[in-house]
Amino acid sequence: MSGVTSRLSGLLGHFTGSPAPAPFEHRFNHHTLSPTFFLPRAAAIEPNAEAIYHVTANNKILRRTYSETADRARGLAYFLKKKGFRRVGILCPNTPAFLESIFGIAAAGSINVAVNYRLKQDDIAYIFEHGDVDVIIVDQEFTNLLDIYRSQHPSIPIIIDTDTDATEGELTGPFDDAVLEGLKYDSETGAQGWAGLEAQAADEESLIALAYTSGTTARPKGVEYTHRGCYLAALANVIESGLNFNQGRAKYLWTLPMFHAMGWTFPWAITAVRGTHYCLRKIDYPEIWRLLKEEHISHFNAAPTVNTLLCNAKEAERLPEPVRVTVAASPPTPHLFEQMTNLNLHPVHVYGMTETYGPITKGYHLPEWDHIPLKEKYQKMARQGHGFITSLPVRVIKTEVPEGTITDVQRDGKEIGEIVFFGNICAKGYYKDPDATRKLFAGGVLHSGDLAVWHPDGAIQILDRSKDIIISGGENISSVALESMLATHPDILEAGVVSVPDSHWGERPKAFITVKEGKSLEGADVISWARTASGISKFMIPREVEIVAELPKTSTGKIRKNVLREWVKGSDRSVGN
Amino acid sequence: MSGVTSRLSGLLGHFTGSPAPAPFEHRFNHHTLSPTFFLPRAAAIEPNAEAIYHVTANNKILRRTYSETADRARGLAYFLKKKGFRRVGILCPNTPAFLESIFGIAAAGSINVAVNYRLKQDDIAYIFEHGDVDVIIVDQEFTNLLDIYRSQHPSIPIIIDTDTDATEGELTGPFDDAVLEGLKYDSETGAQGWAGLEAQAADEESLIALAYTSGTTARPKGVEYTHRGCYLAALANVIESGLNFNQGRAKYLWTLPMFHAMGWTFPWAITAVRGTHYCLRKIDYPEIWRLLKEEHISHFNAAPTVNTLLCNAKEAERLPEPVRVTVAASPPTPHLFEQMTNLNLHPVHVYGMTETYGPITKGYHLPEWDHIPLKEKYQKMARQGHGFITSLPVRVIKTEVPEGTITDVQRDGKEIGEIVFFGNICAKGYYKDPDATRKLFAGGVLHSGDLAVWHPDGAIQILDRSKDIIISGGENISSVALESMLATHPDILEAGVVSVPDSHWGERPKAFITVKEGKSLEGADVISWARTASGISKFMIPREVEIVAELPKTSTGKIRKNVLREWVKGSDRSVGN
Repeated sequence: MSGVTSRLSGLLGHFTGSPAPAPFEHRFNHHTLSPTFFLPRAAAIEPNAEAIYHVTANNKILRRTYSETADRARGLAYFLKKKGFRRVGILCPNTPAFLESIFGIAAAGSINVAVNYRLKQDDIAYIFEHGDVDVIIVDQEFTNLLDIYRSQHPSIPIIIDTDTDATEGELTGPFDDAVLEGLKYDSETGAQGWAGLEAQAADEESLIALAYTSGTTARPKGVEYTHRGCYLAALANVIESGLNFNQGRAKYLWTLPMFHAMGWTFPWAITAVRGTHYCLRKIDYPEIWRLLKEEHISHFNAAPTVNTLLCNAKEAERLPEPVRVTVAASPPTPHLFEQMTNLNLHPVHVYGMTETYGPITKGYHLPEWDHIPLKEKYQKMARQGHGFITSLPVRVIKTEVPEGTITDVQRDGKEIGEIVFFGNICAKGYYKDPDATRKLFAGGVLHSGDLAVWHPDGAIQILDRSKDIIISGGENISSVALESMLATHPDILEAGVVSVPDSHWGERPKAFITVKEGKSLEGADVISWARTASGISKFMIPREVEIVAELPKTSTGKIRKNVLREWVKGSDRSVGN
Repeated sequence: MSGVTSRLSGLLGHFTGSPAPAPFEHRFNHHTLSPTFFLPRAAAIEPNAEAIYHVTANNKILRRTYSETADRARGLAYFLKKKGFRRVGILCPNTPAFLESIFGIAAAGSINVAVNYRLKQDDIAYIFEHGDVDVIIVDQEFTNLLDIYRSQHPSIPIIIDTDTDATEGELTGPFDDAVLEGLKYDSETGAQGWAGLEAQAADEESLIALAYTSGTTARPKGVEYTHRGCYLAALANVIESGLNFNQGRAKYLWTLPMFHAMGWTFPWAITAVRGTHYCLRKIDYPEIWRLLKEEHISHFNAAPTVNTLLCNAKEAERLPEPVRVTVAASPPTPHLFEQMTNLNLHPVHVYGMTETYGPITKGYHLPEWDHIPLKEKYQKMARQGHGFITSLPVRVIKTEVPEGTITDVQRDGKEIGEIVFFGNICAKGYYKDPDATRKLFAGGVLHSGDLAVWHPDGAIQILDRSKDIIISGGENISSVALESMLATHPDILEAGVVSVPDSHWGERPKAFITVKEGKSLEGADVISWARTASGISKFMIPREVEIVAELPKTSTGKIRKNVLREWVKGSDRSVGN
């Protein structure tokens, strides 16, 4: 055991026998809805349960218990309190330090500002400045991404996580030093443990995090997450994704970026049921298949594009035990659902946005669908469905009415309107942007900007974001629907469809296609197949199909339509972001 | 189709195409936590899912969908609104009418007062009077239990449920008439459907029900249940009892009385996941086994005594699929856990009281227990464990300190203290009884009155209610522990232990025993076995053991120790209650 380890062990030992978190409020029959509490609770119930599994930056396997994880979050919290840091930036991949920071920052009564590390340096600088951070926790690999920010804000301290802790308890680097300093500070100032922290916020409507949107067209916006919202979204995710199966022993793989909508509140949801967080520095398909096979992962979340590549990886084979895969981000194709099910990967289809803490609807599976043709079944599963258990119902409203007027579309599966939300799973607003907040909540509902139809059975189905609808000869063509149909071609991996100007029809669709490994296709083949064998309506058939090596995507796996539109205009075919 | 049916169909048809429940509040990112909403939500997501299975009073099988059930609750709500009824008494066994009333009464913005039908007539009269009811929904079989109340309150109307609806949709009796009248009233006054009702309460801290305690020693007290409390307790029960397993298709058998602590909030919890409520007029072991085998029940809740008799019924046989049995009321014996597990009935061990909406702790099963001796494992499973996912932690506090002082006992598994609760899963107080409420919350925690130890691993374990501890020669004897040890004898069905005065030791234990069918035992046999083969500590061995035909129990299955104490004094051995 190294010196650092024994230092930590000594400090931790000091608290092993300490009392459970004391109550933070004595209103008898009331406590604030705060998700931070799930961590000390997990450590109190099952201290030796494995909270974290991780392959470190230097390629060692780290396993950490709930007791250790809670101690580390507690140490970070006291460090932040000691230093008086109130806004804490996070710039990390899905590491243990990221996870511990989410809990530690909130326990200090501070707000976290986690940033997408795939953004450009000046966007990162913009977010940390806009979010008023007074310290930044950064992964060693990403320190250079702070160059612009630090040149402008040289006085803001950074805490580097080296991500090199080993399983035998060895601690390394500045992040660990901060944790140790915090534990020491607590022991020297009353040794209150969790009782001296805010595992319960004083006010459940207060902020726990700012989650910045990716900002494809404008500057990123800081979505305000409340304690109550995160708590109720996390409970819903436990129930809707079935995280409490297997006696609460979910083994959850972090394929979804934690920075994205606070990992859809899964840092709290998994901890609430004492599941194991399988952290993951980057998406690596052979490694994901290794974890699925060797570590018996039971749950993960991923965008359709990740699932598509996963299903087509050469390591893919049917798993002996079912895995629940919560799928969102962009509408999955029926074809993908079928592929996944064949590998024993069972999709839980959800939909939401940063402004709704991630998922807020689910395509609930109805037993009666087991008696309809498979194709029809997968089509039904691909719909966005209904509001979550802790949400109010979602609605689809008419867009052609005076602003602020809320009128539902017909439930006929045909009339197109905008999806809107309301209730507890809606964020509070945009930080320092009252105009955008007013617009977001115009008429008293949260506007998604997504276009959809409302089916007679009550389920909603996304067509497109309004700007992605192609209007050709007076017909509305859903680019999403067309992509979905193209993806049923046996040799097509993925499709991205955008409009191109057409002198006769106004607009017409153009498809960019990637081809499966080992297969070859020409654009003309696809068009001819679309005409004869695809079942695609005549007016929707693309007259241009271009085969490309890769499609441009956001960090969360959405196809970047704005880049495809640039390609149409003749810009170079780089997929960088 | 009868005339009544077509009347209902006509009215229901009127609403089939009506919009989803409208928002009840437009605070953008906030809605009140109200469990009533789970019913219209279930009907919107899956209208044809089976909400109710029931064998009626006239022995027909009734199956009712969520769409029908929501329509009926809505009809009752409008009937109550039309008549202006604000406090609604319920005196029913576990029937569809009871379940629908829980939702319908709350949707009308009224409060339900459900009564234990096994109470004496004057206690029933006391509760309805104390609860200020202005109408009573009563099952045909129980109308005579209202004789005393009605002689005192002749003007309070009653609505009789005949419980004779058949599966083909035939409606019969005054309860159905009220439902139809309500639907008609809505259709004539704007046809607002659920939008005109309170599926969301205006204030989440307002009352939804008064749940009366059984009042073994004093008059029953009316425990005030809030919308927020019921909502959060129901979500916890979904997670803790795993009601969301099998794609949300729980088949829940109503062995627990719905009147008892509002059925532990399971009317809402089961509905939240669109499970089927298997209603049950009375506990009937052959019928329960039929439902387990033929209808593939997946979950039920029951006191240990019900489970004991169930395991010893002649129909008992190992079930092919696991059933989750949520067990509470009094501490189960390790022996019972073992028996149940052998039949594929898997205990989820919870603990709580009327003042905590039923369950508030769970004996969380730790995987590491699978590697310890079976006897030790079942002993650990029999502990009350830790606070629920939506509760704050439970504590065990010293009783020998000035009143209002809250000091934890040592976590040594030895020091005895009182279990106390706080936070959202605590009820608001006692209706019209500020003194009792102050006493309940003395020092800012909810006092359970149950004595327990706190183990080093953080789990709590009940010993006894303070009056049930036997102090013999300076040693504390837990009557619960002794009962548990006696029940390991192969021929003993159940044991009840109380203290008897002893000139030398102060007190000593006396056991009353029931013997399994087909077995015979004398008191002396038990004492001799206890001395030689039981492992019972010498100071605990009962010197008096009396074999009886039946033990006196409360309606919720707890052994009535006060009656056993009367028996000790020589009163007759009637078990009536």
